[in-house]
This record gives sequence, structure tokens and C-alpha cells, in this order.
Amino acid sequence: MIVILGGGPAGKSAALHLVHSGRKVRLIESSGIGGQCLHYGCMMVCGLTDVARTLNTSRNLFGLGVLGNPPELDFPGLMRGMRRVQEKIERVLDEETRSAGVEVAYGREGRLQGGKVFLGNEELEAEAVIAATGSRPSLPEVDGINSRGVFTAHTLHTMEDLPEKILIIGGGIMAAEFAYIFRCFGSEVEILARSGFLKYMDPSLRDLAKKELEGVVIREGVQLSSIYGGSHGISVETRTRDGSSPILEADTLFVAAGLVPRSESLEGVAKGPIGEVVVNERMETNIPGVYACGDVTGPPCLTPIARHEGVVAAENILGRPAIMDYRFFPQYMSLANEFGFCSVESDTDISVSVPGPAGPGSFWSVPKNDTGLTKVSFEPEDGRITGIFTAAPAGGVITSYVAYMMQQGYSVHDFERFREVHPAADGVYWLMRYASARLREMQMQRNGDHGT
Amino acid sequence: MIVILGGGPAGKSAALHLVHSGRKVRLIESSGIGGQCLHYGCMMVCGLTDVARTLNTSRNLFGLGVLGNPPELDFPGLMRGMRRVQEKIERVLDEETRSAGVEVAYGREGRLQGGKVFLGNEELEAEAVIAATGSRPSLPEVDGINSRGVFTAHTLHTMEDLPEKILIIGGGIMAAEFAYIFRCFGSEVEILARSGFLKYMDPSLRDLAKKELEGVVIREGVQLSSIYGGSHGISVETRTRDGSSPILEADTLFVAAGLVPRSESLEGVAKGPIGEVVVNERMETNIPGVYACGDVTGPPCLTPIARHEGVVAAENILGRPAIMDYRFFPQYMSLANEFGFCSVESDTDISVSVPGPAGPGSFWSVPKNDTGLTKVSFEPEDGRITGIFTAAPAGGVITSYVAYMMQQGYSVHDFERFREVHPAADGVYWLMRYASARLREMQMQRNGDHGT
Repeated sequence: MIVILGGGPAGKSAALHLVHSGRKVRLIESSGIGGQCLHYGCMMVCGLTDVARTLNTSRNLFGLGVLGNPPELDFPGLMRGMRRVQEKIERVLDEETRSAGVEVAYGREGRLQGGKVFLGNEELEAEAVIAATGSRPSLPEVDGINSRGVFTAHTLHTMEDLPEKILIIGGGIMAAEFAYIFRCFGSEVEILARSGFLKYMDPSLRDLAKKELEGVVIREGVQLSSIYGGSHGISVETRTRDGSSPILEADTLFVAAGLVPRSESLEGVAKGPIGEVVVNERMETNIPGVYACGDVTGPPCLTPIARHEGVVAAENILGRPAIMDYRFFPQYMSLANEFGFCSVESDTDISVSVPGPAGPGSFWSVPKNDTGLTKVSFEPEDGRITGIFTAAPAGGVITSYVAYMMQQGYSVHDFERFREVHPAADGVYWLMRYASARLREMQMQRNGDHGT
Repeated sequence: MIVILGGGPAGKSAALHLVHSGRKVRLIESSGIGGQCLHYGCMMVCGLTDVARTLNTSRNLFGLGVLGNPPELDFPGLMRGMRRVQEKIERVLDEETRSAGVEVAYGREGRLQGGKVFLGNEELEAEAVIAATGSRPSLPEVDGINSRGVFTAHTLHTMEDLPEKILIIGGGIMAAEFAYIFRCFGSEVEILARSGFLKYMDPSLRDLAKKELEGVVIREGVQLSSIYGGSHGISVETRTRDGSSPILEADTLFVAAGLVPRSESLEGVAKGPIGEVVVNERMETNIPGVYACGDVTGPPCLTPIARHEGVVAAENILGRPAIMDYRFFPQYMSLANEFGFCSVESDTDISVSVPGPAGPGSFWSVPKNDTGLTKVSFEPEDGRITGIFTAAPAGGVITSYVAYMMQQGYSVHDFERFREVHPAADGVYWLMRYASARLREMQMQRNGDHGT
């Protein structure tokens, strides 16, 4: 029997991989299967963004005279509808997991003590253990953080009314996504970023993100000093880079400032500074037979990485040595467009970029020149692709395939044989062919210069 | 100087390819650049479908209690808005073409006579000619086909009001797409298909298409006998397979029954039964120095094929022998989902299919189990992919990349190293990995059986 603590993407993918290989698996999940991803992360953001985009698109079409009236949001109805969809997906995941042969125990948290695993006081027989207990929102350590009116993704479902004004704490992808959502819903939105907004993102995508967040106030270099919450709203005392201490007011404060590992129930395994379980590239902890994967091993906290880590842990338990390779993972942010990006380091690569084409989901963005963008980077010598950065209606999916082509060593010249569909809001193939033609021209000129 | 007749996808891609290689090109376009694709085909359908989907999604969200009211269409406003977007795209294409160095002559039709090319009575100097004059809607040869109330994609922009009831003539992709559009707009819709509806499509996709066309009456095996049009509507006399002759009434009849080559202005080149210019795999006609590409060479009339044919013609003119390869072209239909498909013939392949995942664009389709589907076919021996059939929000883009992987000889096993984004409404990677695991299991069992 292999015991897995946590039924999020990491634990579930490990469990399925093990049972498909004929092993017995007991999965212990304190809440519902699907983890943060389904309940408070990817899927919740997806559901909210789908509604936000529908409102945004409808308003654009109304503005263009194509629709006679724009629709209005029913915020409490949205919260109820969201919960119903999540419950249905949860049932599907539960059925998928149990019908595959995984024994699932819900409702209580497993506990690791040294090499032993417990459910309550009962020690469970286990030839191997996988700790996949996930993460929770990181909360700033300031007075008043538990005030009424302060929310995280974990408590959003308790929000009763759409905020008139919402302050979003955080400068990363999640902060941007919630800013887009609440802005489309009709709230006044301010982002308070401790350092820079989307500071790790490619500048061309970051600039476009700011454009898609039109109307959102973005404050960078803002630290929270304290929060005062009352029945009439929230006051936030801040410190800024220039030394001033403005007090900001809103009816709601939303914390989207990253995730911290949920590792309190894991005793005896080595942990790092923020409580993350330390693992090697085989997802082994310091205790023989104890593996860890997913968010509990620390950032980046992404569902695809968690899933792949789960598979790597499972493969090693099965005696098939596997190592986790973090290169070529596509990343993703949902605003009006899907922002997708993946790159490898290079000191020699060059880039070209182009506005997105009109296609499904972007036809009516043409009047405002809002069709997104695509940028690709490549080595000038052989055309090998080193980066893809795109904002497009299907930007996430596009990026996943192009990232795979990068992993396989493809060059811009390989796109000469690519066959597109039409119409498609995908600027990649066009831009790759353009890059290929320009590279060949440059090389011909260089060869010509050498010849004369 | 190379003279190109027609500025649609075939002519324009040939023109750009030639000027980028340093050749002088004169492009003669009787109307606006972009051809049927922009004005009456892909892009028009895309614009209409984007509106139809917004209405459909909004109604679904209204039904789920997420929106307080659904939006209403302003049909004349849509027609005006559509024209404005098309004009803007036309300006972009014109600018792109001319700034690349192509000399464009608008407003008059070129004419080919034997090996010579004329503009009016003026013979143009031309070292090579490319005929890319496109196609037009195929009209059934019945009395009354020119009645008031009868429309094609070419005259749709003259439709003043949304039809209360519309009869759509045709059983292919275009008929299905317009049926979806008018159904979402609120018209009563009947499809009259001469033989079967979507008869060349994979049955699983066809069945799903019928589901997405809920409320549309689909009549198969229906021939038109005659049309009577008047100020109060249209009567259509038909003959059905069972020998009956029902008379159908509507206010509007829309013909979406395929395209016929527009080759009247091309004298002296060999043509086939429907007037299509006969070409070899180098896109050469029977006259030396005269090439043809795109719809004028006959079906399949698809923009990506036209573009690639244009490039093949240009390459051969440049003295770099190229042949047109029609394999691995992804195909595409837009209903609520994008239906994408591409396959190669195989007598030995096997298939698996799965409902689409919840993701961007499909989250709120979960309650009605409307998340689309993905089906893949592959060879059981080595897992080589032989077919992809999907209906998903980004199904077109997905299919283009998977078709490319098929062209490159990828197998289901290659998806073990694929890194997905999450959430994504893409069932492919999951299904490919599933297929890979099942194949390995089957092979292990077979090897085990041999061993005992």
C-alpha cells in the first residue's frame, strides 16, 4: 500500500499513475478532491474569467452597435453557479479516481511523523508515502489582516456582494487576474504591489497586460503597514517608495500575494525557509520512502508542475528512475486575452513581434487594435526557437504546443511546413515563417558579402 | 514582371513570396484585396460566429443565474459593424501588400488569353502569370433562384432584417456554420441537404454538431424543384427521398451549397468539368509560364490551401522546384465549439475519445455536459497518430498543431514529455497520454502471454 496525503493535482496524478501500474494506493484528502486548483485556484479563476470576458465582449459589441444592450452581472448568482460547477467537477474527479482503483479517504487530514504516517491516532501501513498537502494563500504579517472585508481566493465564495471598490494586494499573475475579473464585473480596482507589477514577465506582455487592465490603478512599491476593518469598509495604511504613507480606503481588500506550503502536518522531513518540503530531483525527501510533490515543495505553484512531479514521484516508487525537468513549462495568465509564455536563457537570441491577427475571439477587437500580440525569440545562427510570448484568445493552448516544439529543438524554419487553420487568432506560424525568411535573407547577404 | 490575377489568399501569398525574393509583381484585383475569405468567407463567418457565441454564452449564463439579463442582437448594427471591421482589415492587407513592394491595380479584372494577359485592351508585359481568380457561390439550377429573399454569403450584407425563418440550402460545413449563426441570432432555421448532412465528417463530430445545432431542423435527401419569391416570403417546392414533394415556406432562403471556380476570364487554359483550371502538382497550367492556384483550381476551397498553393506557384516561378502536398491539412468548422479534424487513411488504426475538459470557454458548459469532445486515432503497433478530431473552444488551433505533429510522424507516446498549461480546454494531451499508457499495457500483456 502506498499512502498519499492530499488529493490535489500532485497527489491525484501520482495516485492514478500508481494504480494504473498495478499498485494499491490510499489517498487521504481532508477536504474535497481537486485541491486548491479546483476550489480556489485555476478553475475558480477560469470560471470567473469566462464571465468577465463575456461581460467585456458584450460591452464592446454594445459599443460597436452590434448588441442592443449589454448584460448585467448577478454576483450572488455567480457565486452560487460557481459552486455548483465546482461540485460537479469534484464529482467527476472523485469518480475518475475511485473507479481507477484508488482508495480515497475524505474528511480527515493525514499526518506524517518521521517515516510513519497516521490518520488520527491510527498508524497506516505504507511501503511508501507521498506528501502532497499543497499550499495556502500567503498573508502579509500586518495588524488587521483578519478584519472583516479582507478576502483571499479561499474565502471569496463567502463574499456576498460585488465590491464597489476593491484593493488587491499582490503584484503577480494572480493579482492581475483578479483585477481583470473585478474590473469587468464593474468594481473600482486598485492593485498594491510590494515591488514591481508583473516584474518577471516579458516587457511586451507586461505592457499589454496594463492596457488590458485599463481603468485599474496599479501602485508599485507599496508596503502595507496596517489594516483597519469595520462595518463600513477597510482603511489600509501603507508606506511607499518615496517615503509617504498614504491611507487607502475601500469596501474590500483581496490578498493575492502568493502561496505558502501547507506542511505543518509533516513532521520530521527537512523543510526550507517558508516551510517547503525539501526534495531532490526524484521528489525524494530526506526520509527514505517519503516523497513530496506539488505546492508543498514550494514555488512555482503551478498545476502542470504539480502533476508532473506527482508522476515523477510515482515512477521512482515503481522502481523506474525518473527525474523532474523544469525546463520548457509553458506559463499562463488570463486577462481579456490568454497570455502565454515560455523561454530558455540565451545571450545571443533575437526577437520579432507582431500584433495578433483577427480570428475567433478577436474579430471584434480589430476596431480598437486590441488583437493581442505574438513575439518569438530565436538563435540567429540556426533559427532554434528560444522563446514564445503571446497574448491571444487561445494563447495558453498555443504556448503549450510551441513550448513542446522548443523542447524538441524546433527552429523557425520548421514552420515552413506548418499547415494552419483559417481563421485562427494565432500569430505564431505567420511570425515564425516571417522570421525564417528574414534569417535566410540575412544569411544570403552575409554569404554575398563574404563573396565580394 | 510577374502578373497575378486576383488578390485573395492565393494571389496575395504568391505576390508576397515573390517580392520577398526580389521579383517585381503586379497584382490585379477587380474588387478589394482579401478576396472571398475576407469579404464573404472565413472572416465574415468568424465575425458573425463571434457574435453568435457571445449571445449563446450570455443566454447560458443567464439561464444559470449568473447574468441578470441576456443581451439582444441589433442585426442592422451588426451588418454595419461587420463592414467596418472588414474595411479596416482590408486596409491592413492593402498596406501590407503594397509596402512589401507589390504593385496593386484595383478596380478592373485582368484577362488571360492564351499565354497573354490583358487589362482592358492593354496587353501586359509578363514573364509569368498566376491566375488566382477564386470562386463564387454555387447556385442550384432551379426556377426562381434569383428571387427576392434569396441570399448567398456574397449578398448577406444586403439583408436588412434578421429573418424570422430561414431555409439554408446545403449540407456541408458552411451550411452548418450559418445555421448556428442564425439560430443563435434567434431565427427559426431549417437546413435542406441534398444528400447527407456533414456526410464526410467523422461521425462523433457530426453527432456533436447536431447537438450544437439544437432547435435547427435538418432535412436530408431534399432536392429543390423551384422557388417562388414574393414580397411576403419564399416558397420552395422540394422533392424528398421518399418521393414526396413538400412545399416549405420561409421569409428568407440562404444558399450555402459550395463554391464554383471563377474562371470565365481565363481563356485558353485547360479546365475541368466545373470550370476549374487544371494544374499539376507544381501549380502549372497547360500553358507554359501560366500558373493557377486557390479556389479557381477547384475544391477543396480553403484559405490555407490557397495560400500554400500560392507559395508553391511562386517557388516554381523562382526556379526552385516545389510540389504541393495536400496531406495533413487541418480542417475546421465553427459552431459553439471549434470543430477541428485531420486524418490519414489507415486500415489498422484504433481510436479513443473523451469529453472535453472544463477550461477557458467551457467552464460554464459543464452543467449541460456541453464541453465538446476529443478523439484520436493511432496505429496500435507503434502509436503513430493517424487522426485528430476535436470540438473545443480552441479546437482549430489545437488541430493545426496536432496535424503538424502527425506530419512529423509523432506517436501518442511522444505526449509523455508534453507540458500542458492549466486550465486549458484541450483534451488532446490527456487523451494521448491515456492512449500511450493503454498501448504499453496491451503490449506488456501480449509479451506476458507469449512468455507463458
